[in-house]
Amino acid sequence: MSHNTFGHLFRVTTFGESHGPAIGCVVDGCPPLLALDVADIQADLDRRRPGTSRFTTQRREPDTARILSGVMIDDSTGRQVTTGAPIAVLIDNVDQRSKDYSEIKDKFRPGHADYTYEAKYGLRDYRGGGRSSARETAARVAAGAIARKIIPAVRIRAALVQIGKLKIDRARWDWDETQRNPFFCPDAEAAARFADYLDGVRKSGSSVGAVVEVVAEGAPAGWGAPIYGKLDGELAAALMSVNAVKGVEIGDGFATAELSGEENADEMRAGADGRPQFLSNHAGGILGGISTGQTIVARFAVKPTSSILSPRRTVTRAGEDTDIVTTGRHDPCVGIRAAPVGEAMVACVLADAFLRHRGQVGG
Amino acid sequence: MSHNTFGHLFRVTTFGESHGPAIGCVVDGCPPLLALDVADIQADLDRRRPGTSRFTTQRREPDTARILSGVMIDDSTGRQVTTGAPIAVLIDNVDQRSKDYSEIKDKFRPGHADYTYEAKYGLRDYRGGGRSSARETAARVAAGAIARKIIPAVRIRAALVQIGKLKIDRARWDWDETQRNPFFCPDAEAAARFADYLDGVRKSGSSVGAVVEVVAEGAPAGWGAPIYGKLDGELAAALMSVNAVKGVEIGDGFATAELSGEENADEMRAGADGRPQFLSNHAGGILGGISTGQTIVARFAVKPTSSILSPRRTVTRAGEDTDIVTTGRHDPCVGIRAAPVGEAMVACVLADAFLRHRGQVGG
Amino acid sequence: MSHNTFGHLFRVTTFGESHGPAIGCVVDGCPPLLALDVADIQADLDRRRPGTSRFTTQRREPDTARILSGVMIDDSTGRQVTTGAPIAVLIDNVDQRSKDYSEIKDKFRPGHADYTYEAKYGLRDYRGGGRSSARETAARVAAGAIARKIIPAVRIRAALVQIGKLKIDRARWDWDETQRNPFFCPDAEAAARFADYLDGVRKSGSSVGAVVEVVAEGAPAGWGAPIYGKLDGELAAALMSVNAVKGVEIGDGFATAELSGEENADEMRAGADGRPQFLSNHAGGILGGISTGQTIVARFAVKPTSSILSPRRTVTRAGEDTDIVTTGRHDPCVGIRAAPVGEAMVACVLADAFLRHRGQVGG
Amino acid sequence: MSHNTFGHLFRVTTFGESHGPAIGCVVDGCPPLLALDVADIQADLDRRRPGTSRFTTQRREPDTARILSGVMIDDSTGRQVTTGAPIAVLIDNVDQRSKDYSEIKDKFRPGHADYTYEAKYGLRDYRGGGRSSARETAARVAAGAIARKIIPAVRIRAALVQIGKLKIDRARWDWDETQRNPFFCPDAEAAARFADYLDGVRKSGSSVGAVVEVVAEGAPAGWGAPIYGKLDGELAAALMSVNAVKGVEIGDGFATAELSGEENADEMRAGADGRPQFLSNHAGGILGGISTGQTIVARFAVKPTSSILSPRRTVTRAGEDTDIVTTGRHDPCVGIRAAPVGEAMVACVLADAFLRHRGQVGG
Repeated sequence: MSHNTFGHLFRVTTFGESHGPAIGCVVDGCPPLLALDVADIQADLDRRRPGTSRFTTQRREPDTARILSGVMIDDSTGRQVTTGAPIAVLIDNVDQRSKDYSEIKDKFRPGHADYTYEAKYGLRDYRGGGRSSARETAARVAAGAIARKIIPAVRIRAALVQIGKLKIDRARWDWDETQRNPFFCPDAEAAARFADYLDGVRKSGSSVGAVVEVVAEGAPAGWGAPIYGKLDGELAAALMSVNAVKGVEIGDGFATAELSGEENADEMRAGADGRPQFLSNHAGGILGGISTGQTIVARFAVKPTSSILSPRRTVTRAGEDTDIVTTGRHDPCVGIRAAPVGEAMVACVLADAFLRHRGQVGG
Repeated sequence: MSHNTFGHLFRVTTFGESHGPAIGCVVDGCPPLLALDVADIQADLDRRRPGTSRFTTQRREPDTARILSGVMIDDSTGRQVTTGAPIAVLIDNVDQRSKDYSEIKDKFRPGHADYTYEAKYGLRDYRGGGRSSARETAARVAAGAIARKIIPAVRIRAALVQIGKLKIDRARWDWDETQRNPFFCPDAEAAARFADYLDGVRKSGSSVGAVVEVVAEGAPAGWGAPIYGKLDGELAAALMSVNAVKGVEIGDGFATAELSGEENADEMRAGADGRPQFLSNHAGGILGGISTGQTIVARFAVKPTSSILSPRRTVTRAGEDTDIVTTGRHDPCVGIRAAPVGEAMVACVLADAFLRHRGQVGG
Repeated sequence: MSHNTFGHLFRVTTFGESHGPAIGCVVDGCPPLLALDVADIQADLDRRRPGTSRFTTQRREPDTARILSGVMIDDSTGRQVTTGAPIAVLIDNVDQRSKDYSEIKDKFRPGHADYTYEAKYGLRDYRGGGRSSARETAARVAAGAIARKIIPAVRIRAALVQIGKLKIDRARWDWDETQRNPFFCPDAEAAARFADYLDGVRKSGSSVGAVVEVVAEGAPAGWGAPIYGKLDGELAAALMSVNAVKGVEIGDGFATAELSGEENADEMRAGADGRPQFLSNHAGGILGGISTGQTIVARFAVKPTSSILSPRRTVTRAGEDTDIVTTGRHDPCVGIRAAPVGEAMVACVLADAFLRHRGQVGG
Repeated sequence: MSHNTFGHLFRVTTFGESHGPAIGCVVDGCPPLLALDVADIQADLDRRRPGTSRFTTQRREPDTARILSGVMIDDSTGRQVTTGAPIAVLIDNVDQRSKDYSEIKDKFRPGHADYTYEAKYGLRDYRGGGRSSARETAARVAAGAIARKIIPAVRIRAALVQIGKLKIDRARWDWDETQRNPFFCPDAEAAARFADYLDGVRKSGSSVGAVVEVVAEGAPAGWGAPIYGKLDGELAAALMSVNAVKGVEIGDGFATAELSGEENADEMRAGADGRPQFLSNHAGGILGGISTGQTIVARFAVKPTSSILSPRRTVTRAGEDTDIVTTGRHDPCVGIRAAPVGEAMVACVLADAFLRHRGQVGG
């Protein structure tokens, strides 16, 4: 609803800038009595953390999370559980190098939010991108780790399916492989090609875009709601809100424009459990904004990092022509680290959809 | 926020089913003293209205709007103006043929929301699709007409750029042409091809998808807000909430995945008015979730209508295998009438962004 | 959240002015499969309806409700039930006499919202008070009737406990009596005194205030939520939003200021069902913002109608001194008809609290 | 909207428990470029801080605030200003004595939220009251200090007007006096009586209630909005959400029930500036939910602290009868420290009303 909050019953508020003392989130509406340890959050943060391979920014951030509220030890089990109160998670900024910002503080970096923040607010926090830094996504990942606890039967995973013009071969899709290469790529062969390609991009000081696919298995039929609370609408908003994302699609997405009704509509047959068995999943698990019980599939496009070494034409805050080169640490492909962020956003949306569904319809 | 409401300061609530007595909307938060006549709303409704060409459903709905509240004659000017109170617009359903629903009431139509509504609510309104009918979009169009009054300097137009595999030639883009053919197609040559192609689809009782592009010119820099109130995030939610939409992209969208940072980031030069002049618009007028002052460009994919004449495999409510043929009136390509709906959604999002920007930042 | 919407999961949006074509509400988030007939709504509307005794305004409004959406006949039972879609209720304005407004349209009536609406919006709908008319409360009553269906185990009743300086004797409290006198007064003797007193007030063209008590029995422990979703906070907002209300209290309310901790805190003893049995109810059924399982008690003060026959000093829109006499139909004590309105607001708040509780905590 | 968030454009989210590592708030929607130093926040916190006199709890909390985000040094002025990003304020808990909770952890303290939290969530944080502790109000005060920056022309002050049965003499009202005695009492003579009286209460281990009045001067006409966004409705919700508050009234409040229309409705005369000059202020500065430009007056009743030394009857978590004595540090009259909290809540509501008004209506 607000600018830095999303969700309805399960609500996430984030705060913090790239180079301030800390970033964090407040997660409100979490059901009580869910086992939650800081290690659960840390595991997801570690997957998003920078500096784990040569393909991500070399900023060294341990991203150590602390839970400030909303949990306590349940005396009956000795486990730490949620209490139903808001859960605040704090992540200190450690490696916010005190550097010289004189090069960028008075110039608008093309492709960045520099000009728009300045146009809106009359000033901008030029230190590391301030609030618009991708660092904010760590707070989302922390929230997503909590969201997963609410819907433990739903397995949410993301995979990088395209870097630049290179795409995976879906026939080789292997989820385990996403844990083995630094790209969250489900195709080992493609991962090798991605590495070669991205080495070239990185060395030339350039950058490239990517496509990430998020898959949620195990959500029952009935989550989501017409009309403006559609599950696909909320997924679209959540994923589009991730830094650098320029497109979102559900199921076959843009490809459905080329399909006929016969090709697109997923037929059904009676399933063993009495519920319909869909014979295909062009819909990506959502019809009329409500989950079908099939696997939910969302895909998003991440634009290339705008921080590159080639000089680019721009203007100063004073309105004069100039050039700019964005030196310093950056990701040659921000799409890579967007994979755990995408998972987190989908987890938050689904947890919220589950709680609201239970609220309106019960059980 | 709620299931049938969207927006924050400018808020739209819609209600009504395809075959009930009426549909409508309540528009709250509209500034006072805006000239608003029912004819303003009717003009947009007439563009969305079915039955205006052989390419849309033959349901005959005059879609006559009545304003029930929120306006009065301003004695000083003699014009009807908004009062700041909620504006309720009612559109009676006229042609909700009393037909025999026995064929579909106990079967789930593939590609429709039949099964998911039933799974969620334990029943569904099978009469013409009930709440999930595209008829609901008439209420959105009414709201959009009001939204346009709030931001009169912003011109919002939509164009059909693809039907099935047929795409327009952007070199022939002519906005006037969108008024002349039944497809809102900006390319006269393509429109002719669309007509031929769609005649075939229609006669075979099939259907096909489409891509619509919405363009908003004249929005200043500074609208929208980080992080979860991003303009692109809200556009994505708004457009994805339109019936049958499966993908949304901003600016170059999914194509940015294939671009390098050099290609993608829009460079700037000092403009005559002291503000930056962008040298390209890959970003589609939005950076960091905030408008750049350039033209805002959003695109969405509409899946093919799921109502087709070929028999499809499905199951009954009782869980038995069966086949279904969706007879009756339908759009062979719902993407066509989605053009004015897309405009309306973009208008609502932008009006809301403007009001919130004015609230937080002033002026 | 918005100006003309309240509630979270159970959300009510109202619209309409005193002298427009109709008023109404859209109720969103209602669970499906609840039996709901228009007669259920009408029964509550009839209790609020003006003109039923000489003690209320003589405006003749049948207040006939129509349900436009959100219900259908459940084939399995033959009963009309909610579908989970938004329920729009329309109430036509019938007796909006076309009168001469020249006396009041350019003068601000003291105690009314005339000046504040004008100051805010730059104009005001002077016809019968426009949006600020107590007529809007009919829409609330309709919504409240729907809310009751969601929490059928909770019995919500209101009683007039004070008119002017006359108070009831609580020892004579008899709920049945509230159905027998035109004041919703639970004390037959007091009702007789109220009648005498109010006849005098009415004949002199004056008006007087009142206090209404709303009592909800049967709500379990656990509804409501800290900190800003406290049940008492939401009741306060809901009741204070009713026209002419100037104060709200829960349980012993303002009287608790004079109590000691020993007197105020309700002690407990083990109840037969294993749950605590409270030995008193100073808290009015709410502790820490959450229901205790005891009877919920809220009380609100209604100021005297500002429409009176004595000439009052005021100013014109042009800023000149003048006097005004408010002729025409009015309630000598608006507090009377506020009783069913108070019930409706409490019903809406409790239904919403129940749904949210079920959402966060389950079953 | 949510349980731990309030406000619309100006939004406050709080978190933290009495005995966790820290409490805090995230303030979202603050306009940019407002000078804001941590000292501004600290000044208000110091007024609410416990342990400043013998009449408040002896818990020693320095309540030192840190701003984690949303501010930066404006290079052009050298002053720290808001950036428009969310402002997180953290207040470490210092004196959360590690005590033995065995006495209270399995018993429900009468008048506290112990039983209701347990009934709702299935467990409760028994350490110092957990989330239901009055300690949470420190976060509100921090938020209120930020809110004041948004509406610098509005002066918001609170005064204790009643303790137990002792009331101030309004003829002796002196705002300066509220700074001189430990009660925020505007009547020096009453303050002396309060001291004597409260010494007795304190020594006997008892407690007593109070009434606090909050006064806001300088708000223009036009803030607030019908119908469910009424300024008085939002004030009521905000003040009722403060711990131990059981009643809220605006202007003459409950006393209006006894008034006639002639006595109650504030007459007007043309003011020097062309705007109406009200001849009285029974309305407390709000008509129809919108500010009149007069002084806004709200009053709230605070129940006596439920922590008292007399043994009270209660039950255990296991459902057995027992007695309890609440030893430990507590406020004999929590109403005292509620004064700065009330100010903060009113500041937040007014700042939010101002921003929303500017959003809908402009300038």
